[in-house]
Amino acid sequence: MKTLIIVGHPTPDSSATQQFLKAAVQDLSGVKWHELASVKGNFVANEERQLLQKSSRVVLQFPLYWYNVPDLLKRWQDQVFTDINQVSLAGKELGIVVNVGKAVQEFRLGGTVGFSLSGLLSPLAAWAKHFQMKLLPLFVIDRFEYQNLKQQQQLLIAYQQFLELPQPVTFAAQEAWFLDKLKEKVDLASGRQRQQLELIMQQLQEKTTKLADLQAVLRPIRKDDQIHGN
Amino acid sequence: MKTLIIVGHPTPDSSATQQFLKAAVQDLSGVKWHELASVKGNFVANEERQLLQKSSRVVLQFPLYWYNVPDLLKRWQDQVFTDINQVSLAGKELGIVVNVGKAVQEFRLGGTVGFSLSGLLSPLAAWAKHFQMKLLPLFVIDRFEYQNLKQQQQLLIAYQQFLELPQPVTFAAQEAWFLDKLKEKVDLASGRQRQQLELIMQQLQEKTTKLADLQAVLRPIRKDDQIHGN
Repeated sequence: MKTLIIVGHPTPDSSATQQFLKAAVQDLSGVKWHELASVKGNFVANEERQLLQKSSRVVLQFPLYWYNVPDLLKRWQDQVFTDINQVSLAGKELGIVVNVGKAVQEFRLGGTVGFSLSGLLSPLAAWAKHFQMKLLPLFVIDRFEYQNLKQQQQLLIAYQQFLELPQPVTFAAQEAWFLDKLKEKVDLASGRQRQQLELIMQQLQEKTTKLADLQAVLRPIRKDDQIHGN
Repeated sequence: MKTLIIVGHPTPDSSATQQFLKAAVQDLSGVKWHELASVKGNFVANEERQLLQKSSRVVLQFPLYWYNVPDLLKRWQDQVFTDINQVSLAGKELGIVVNVGKAVQEFRLGGTVGFSLSGLLSPLAAWAKHFQMKLLPLFVIDRFEYQNLKQQQQLLIAYQQFLELPQPVTFAAQEAWFLDKLKEKVDLASGRQRQQLELIMQQLQEKTTKLADLQAVLRPIRKDDQIHGN
């Protein structure tokens, strides 16, 4: 799978969020980072379309400006998708990574914003529907600058998994992904560090097996709840 | 009341819809037509803000591009409203005049678009709420190029009333508006034409009085229905 990240931030170099996310994809081989801000003047529609054609998952990544996509990303849409017959995106996945400057909870009914992020971003859902793309669950980054180290670590993992894992994401796939990443680290380590990492990996594998057993027990119980709540 | 129309079409001269609307405001003294496309390069935030400050009703007028505002209008938002303390829009009215290239009925659930115009344009509603502006009912132009002469005449009147009449619009206010416009025509006419126009105006005034009587009778009956439907 090739994932293309369309970075719609007008000045990504000055954005702590975008720099953090950029660092997070450095080691991901199947992921291409494409900053729209690096294109000077008008977009060359054909070049942009070719990038899209090569990808199976397209991620639009941007800060919410005035409850909408930034001007730069809208310009990309308006300039690149003029003759819609020249591009076929059918069957590709569309991911949306949006970071907000107001607390996510303000986007609920009665919050200071009072409009949901899913509603505000529905033009992108309509766009995905137009091109018969499969829309992935919205990935929201809640005020990166207020996150502590642990929250940032969790964000890093969730973001990498959002880019790399097949959808819909299962718990088993997340565990396997984590073990894979750990194995890469083990292979690069040596001596005492390697022994420690191997021990962690062994414990994680055992827990994963136990969790899988537990889930098998829980599955028939949860089946009904998932439809109606409880 | 001063109405400011912010025209967000990137090439209004080439748009039959925008040219039609532009002709419709020629004789309206309290209405200012402001084409964003006429601003070369970046917007001068201060000039744009001054225009807004002078108006009591601001109308954002644009074609729907990719289920959203055009890039030009988003750029205006992003560039002009950077330091939000420099502009006070509280209490002003915000109107939205949007023209669509797909049939309006396609925007309902299950239509080919499948997302409502009110939902797709909710970023503007959130923006209005942010500035404590009073959002007017959405004014939608359904594929102008398919409209026949009668539909275009109706559009002309509805559009002029949307710009000029106090909100919420009442039937009585619409009638009075129409009589005023007719009176202007009478004053400019002479001879036989003037006699004919005076006769039409007289008949219209009589019908208006009859309708007002009828409405007084209907009002108590309709009162309940308006809340729950019937």
